[in-house]
Parts: sequence; C-alpha cells; structure tokens
Amino acid sequence: MKTVNVGILGFGTVGAGAVKLLLDNAEDIKQRVGAELRIKGIADLDTVTDRKIGYDVSGLLTGDALSLINDPDIHIIVETIGGVKPAESFVRAALGAGKSVVTANKMLIAKEGAGLMALAREKGADLLFEASVGGGIPSIDPIKNNLAANRINKIIGIVNGTTNYLLSEMKKGKNYSAALKEAQSLGYAEQDPTSDVEGFDSMYKLAILSRLCFNTEVCADDIYREGITSITDYDIKYANEMGYQIRLLAMAERTGGQIYAAVHPALVPDEHPIAGVDGVMNAVFLSSDGAGDTMYYGAGAGSLPAGSAIAGDVAEAARNILRGCRGAGAVACYNDIPVAPAESLVRRNYIRIIVRDEAGCIAAISGAFARYAVSLESIIQKNTKDGLAEVVWLTHAAEEERMRKALSEIEKIPLVDSIPSRIRVI
Amino acid sequence: MKTVNVGILGFGTVGAGAVKLLLDNAEDIKQRVGAELRIKGIADLDTVTDRKIGYDVSGLLTGDALSLINDPDIHIIVETIGGVKPAESFVRAALGAGKSVVTANKMLIAKEGAGLMALAREKGADLLFEASVGGGIPSIDPIKNNLAANRINKIIGIVNGTTNYLLSEMKKGKNYSAALKEAQSLGYAEQDPTSDVEGFDSMYKLAILSRLCFNTEVCADDIYREGITSITDYDIKYANEMGYQIRLLAMAERTGGQIYAAVHPALVPDEHPIAGVDGVMNAVFLSSDGAGDTMYYGAGAGSLPAGSAIAGDVAEAARNILRGCRGAGAVACYNDIPVAPAESLVRRNYIRIIVRDEAGCIAAISGAFARYAVSLESIIQKNTKDGLAEVVWLTHAAEEERMRKALSEIEKIPLVDSIPSRIRVI
Repeated sequence: MKTVNVGILGFGTVGAGAVKLLLDNAEDIKQRVGAELRIKGIADLDTVTDRKIGYDVSGLLTGDALSLINDPDIHIIVETIGGVKPAESFVRAALGAGKSVVTANKMLIAKEGAGLMALAREKGADLLFEASVGGGIPSIDPIKNNLAANRINKIIGIVNGTTNYLLSEMKKGKNYSAALKEAQSLGYAEQDPTSDVEGFDSMYKLAILSRLCFNTEVCADDIYREGITSITDYDIKYANEMGYQIRLLAMAERTGGQIYAAVHPALVPDEHPIAGVDGVMNAVFLSSDGAGDTMYYGAGAGSLPAGSAIAGDVAEAARNILRGCRGAGAVACYNDIPVAPAESLVRRNYIRIIVRDEAGCIAAISGAFARYAVSLESIIQKNTKDGLAEVVWLTHAAEEERMRKALSEIEKIPLVDSIPSRIRVI
Repeated sequence: MKTVNVGILGFGTVGAGAVKLLLDNAEDIKQRVGAELRIKGIADLDTVTDRKIGYDVSGLLTGDALSLINDPDIHIIVETIGGVKPAESFVRAALGAGKSVVTANKMLIAKEGAGLMALAREKGADLLFEASVGGGIPSIDPIKNNLAANRINKIIGIVNGTTNYLLSEMKKGKNYSAALKEAQSLGYAEQDPTSDVEGFDSMYKLAILSRLCFNTEVCADDIYREGITSITDYDIKYANEMGYQIRLLAMAERTGGQIYAAVHPALVPDEHPIAGVDGVMNAVFLSSDGAGDTMYYGAGAGSLPAGSAIAGDVAEAARNILRGCRGAGAVACYNDIPVAPAESLVRRNYIRIIVRDEAGCIAAISGAFARYAVSLESIIQKNTKDGLAEVVWLTHAAEEERMRKALSEIEKIPLVDSIPSRIRVI
C-alpha cells in the first residue's frame, strides 16, 4: 500500500476539521483512495493550543509553513489560512514546487484564481477548492463534472450561513441587533461581522460559482452587493404573510450576452426549493438546459463540514497522483462574457413606505412609479399609527435604474414620511 | 484538437436526451473536455422513427449494436437499453473490448454491478452510471468523490418520479386510480406501472446507493419493499393535517454492524428538507459524520435530465481517456456488512383503524399495542359514520416484528372493523 503525504497550512476551525476527518476515517479513506493519506505536518502560528480533535498531533505542529511546502516528501498542501496574504504566497510556492494544492480560501480563489489556475496548469499540479463555496456541500465538482454537458443559465445561492442564521432568528421576532448579538455569542458570527452581513463573503463565492458555471472570468468587484443590515423583523413578518421568505441571495444569470450577478437580500416564494433552507444551512440552486433545476443543500460552514470538503479534495488529489493524471481538472475560462452594470439588473421589488394617512398619497406614489414605467402588482396597507400609515408595495419586474429614479422621486413627495425598506423579489 | 468517438446503444427517451445534449452543447463540451466528442453511431431496433431531437441523425442509426461495440474507432459505449437482457451482454462485450462504458441502467448495476465493475477494473476501463439513480441529479459522483472522507450513516431517497407525482396529485384530492390514469396519459407512468408503484425501481436505486455509501455489496432482493398502491387520499389528508407529507422513501441506515434497507411509503415531517420534494422531482438526502446532512435535488427522470447525467459521464470517461487514467473510479466494496432482516426494522407508525363506535374499543386496541411493547404517541378520532369510527394512531418507534404481531391481534378484536392503512413515519 502506497502513502501520500499531506501538509496542512492553518490549524484553525477548518484546518482542524480536515485533520480530524482524515484521522477519524483514515481506514475508509485508504480503501477508497488506494493509498494511505498521511498528515506529515501542520503549520500554524499557534503551535500550542489543544484543538481538541481527539488526537495528539502536537508532534506534527510547526510554526514554519515553508518547511512543509519545501519538504520533498509532501505531495499535497492544504491551505486553510484564509485571506490573500500570506496564503497566496504559500499557495504559489506549493504549486511552483509542483505540489497539488487544496484550499478553502474563497477570497483567494475569487481574486487570484485565474493566475493560480494557470500556474497549476503550467506545473501539472491540481488546484482544488470545493471547500471555498458552500462548506460541506458538493457544488463545485458537480458543476465541473456532472453538469459538463449542460449550459447553466442561472445560479441562486444561499452561500452564507451567518446571514441565513440571522434572518431565520429574526423570523422568530428578534430584531437585527439582538439576533446578531446572539449569533456572536454562539460563534455563528464574527466579532466584526462585516464580511458576512454586508455580503462580501457571498460575493466572493458567487464570483467562483459564476466562473465555473459560465466559463468566464468574473471579477468579484463587478458583482452588485448589498447586505442584510437594513432588513427588519417587520419586513420578514410581512414577507411571510405574503408567502415569501427573506434570504440573502447570491444570484447570477447569463442572458443576452451578459452576466447579471448580484448579492442582495430577496423575497423568495415559499414554493421555491431554496425558501426552505433555514438557519446555518446553505444551498446552491442551478438552472440548466439539460438537468433542469438542481439543488445542492447542506451545512455551509463549520469545522467538520468544511473539513469534509477539504478531505474530499485531498482524496481526489491523491487519486490523481496515484493515477499519474494530475492537473487536468482546471476550469476552462474560454468565454469572455461581460458582467452587466448594476443599473441594468431587472427585479421585482418589495417596498415599504411610511406615508401620512391622507387622501392622495397612494395616487402620488403610484404616479411616480408610472412615470418610470414601474408597474405594480399589489399595494397593502399594514398599520396606521399617529397619523402615519405603513404601506407595502410589490412591483412587477423593473430595471434597477428606473426603480432608483422612481424611489428618489417618491422620497420627495410631501405626504411620504420615509421609505424604510426596499427588498428585491425573485 | 483530439476526437473521442462515442457509440450509443438504445435510442429511446434517455438515449435521445443524451444525443441531443451532446450535440446541443458540443462546443462547450469540447472546451471543457479538451477534445471533440463525436457520436459515431446509434444502435436501436427502431432505425426509422424520427426522435425529434432537432438534428438529422438518420445516417448514424444502425440496428446492429455489436457493430458499434466492435468498432475499434469507438472509445466509449453508452448503454440506455435498460433491463438485464440483452444490455448485460452488450456492456460485457464493450468492457471486454477495453472500452469505457456509461450506463443509465439501474437494474443492471443493482443486479450485476459487482461483476461488471470487476470486469472494468480487469480491463482498465471506466464503468460510469450516474444516470442510474436520480436522473439528472448528481448523487453518485458526490458520494464517491466529495464525501470520500466521510462515514455515511443514513440515506433517505425520493428516487422515483412516478410515485412522487402520484402522491403529489393525490394530495390535491384525487384517488389513487384517477391519479394513475392521469399520469399514464401524461407519460409520467408506464402502461404497466408495477416497477414504479410497487417500489422495484426505488429498490434497485437504493441497492446502488447503499453499495456506494457503505462500501459493501447490497443485494436488491434483500431490501424490504412496499409500494404505494394501498395509500389513500384520506391518509394523505390526515398526514398533512398532522404536519407530514407522504412520500415513497428509499431508506438505508448503517448501525450496529448491520444495514437496515427498505423501500416503503412514509410520513415525512414538514420540516424535513425532503418533505418539500414535490411532483416528479427527486432528492437524495445523506447523513454523514463530516459533511453532516446534505441533499441533492432535481429532476429524477426525463429525456434531458437523464441525458445530462449520461453526457456528464461521457465527458468524464473522455477526460480519463485523454489523461491516460481510466479504470480508477470503481467503487471499492471492502466491507461485508449484512442487510438486517425486515422484521428488525424499527420505525414509528401511522395506523388508521375503523372501529365500531362503542365503549371499550380504544382500551382493547391500546391493550394489544401494550402487550407487544408498542408505545403510543397520539390517538385521533377523525370521522364517525354509520356506527363506525375512524381512528388514527401514531406509535413511537417499534420493531417491525412486534408491530406486525400487535396489528394481527388488533385485527381480531371484535370491535375492530378493519385496518385500512399502516404507514411508517420518519
């Protein structure tokens, strides 16, 4: 029986999960892969703290990542450090040395993926990143392999567990800050939650999914991004009453020679398979010409789920080493499809407007919508208090630019007090 | 640019879907695979009927399957004939000639998979069968690859589109025969629906999934099987009222050194992700120690979805040919785990009993359950008519053998008129 040696960079939550699974299921993995996968070293700045994975790996710990990268006995490098620096230089060094690399790093792949894949191809090495999107959910491999004969037209992802947990808790009546505080105390949200709640995390993941689905380079910065911080528990309540769930979606669509890519909260009809994805669970929903609608569902984060995706990639990299066919799984970006400007996004909209409870108000607002050719689906008055009325408007699909102009005009109507919420609808 | 030649056996619904996708997306596939996939011949007994796939392939049609299998220019044989004979002999001949084989044939893989995989391994050829379970849903590859570092403990599948469609229609108030008639006229059910409605189709698929998840041979005939023909629209209505959906499930679990595998209708709680799988859609839900709960959802049948799975496998087989690493993806059955006898299945139960509306009846039935240590969760009286009352019982989990004995005793109670339904609950 052969041995494939693995070096792990980063021994945080994700790295520890990967190490634990590789050790827990070593015997099964050996049988499935046809070789023993041996962890030869684990590099982390903290070589002291016990990660409580049920194994004493203290003898494997080193503070020197390069000692693993430069070890000629190590065949596969796993990168779970996160962020671009210093992860990028380590990944480049490992690929440069001809080693296969498995990474969970969405920011790195979203930002530097094209260059890293080119380097992997040049060196005949594998660069695998299933763990970078959707945690333990197989989503990248199915796109690359099982859907290889499909033209994928649309991606709808719930790819951030923190925000989905927050929205699920707010559904129970908590307001945003209470939900966030609780999530932080449970470890579901970072002390600085910006990357999650402002949609950056989802944006990186959508860039990766879009590249895979549409075979074109998609720059994360070209993706329209809006977080969940302005969503209130009222909006969730009203949406639920109308038969919708509010989710932070990462959506991309290929149509008319452009890619429409955006991260924003949205009302999702209860009948849509993605509406039932609750709490910290994630899902990637794809529409394609062959398979039709498919969805991949599971835990989007967490030590063992992310560890599972990494360890699965390590098994694949090891198989490719044993079979002598590394470096062939790279994503082919043979298209050059531009990302459409955010102003051209076409969506239905949910808009909550506080107005003075006086005659002529609805007419004035409807008139403003009409001037920008935004047609209306329903108008529901929710509450009246202290001379103010809360009115929820659902519009038909309209271009972002027209919608913005209409809203800016509505804000100026004297009878309009404020527009606290505007959420897109799918 | 290289060319990989493909021969298609069987030009029915599934074969036509595969051909259409390979032609529709030929340019994308070429870029993704790194070679042109050329259909060199299509064998079918019917070489005349126009399959209306949008291409004139009449020049490729032949009545002679062996002419494709024996063509030294053909690298990959696709088998979409179905059934064991003559499909098995064609697949054996193709593998024997060292060709990679892609098949959609669940019966063949369930019954003869072990031998065929051994032959593929011996010949260094690929035998791929993603289309045999779940139509267009990637489920087999994720198990083999992405979950390779997991110990999978449980499978819950809705893997038959026909029965799921029937149950969804019955939810709207149709009875079983009306729903079946309609499904037959729409082409969702065969004129002889036995294989679907009696659970044989699900049984074969569960045998395949169990082998993959537990790395052990599972004989389809060892799987307990019960169809949906005795489900009534009343049961569906009552189940819905209690917060459940009725689905035909293919379930397998590894516990205590045995595999518990069964196909039967079941009440699924509304909160379970699989409860929302409606109509002809299918899903495979897995619980494992690393990724946790994951679910794979999509169209379980149909020309293009099944064609998508086949064409995806053809792309994989072609990549392996180009990379010179065929024959390494076989399923390792290194375990030898016995399938537990049906009598030992442990399930909760929904039981609908018609009783005479007289004192002492509930006591007599409860007493019978108690004698076999079947404890009760709820008892709800639904309807009383003509001196008869309909009572729905939910039991806690109990062994099949005890449940059967209790029910057989209850049937003999003079106040009991009949037991029209007994459905398991998950």
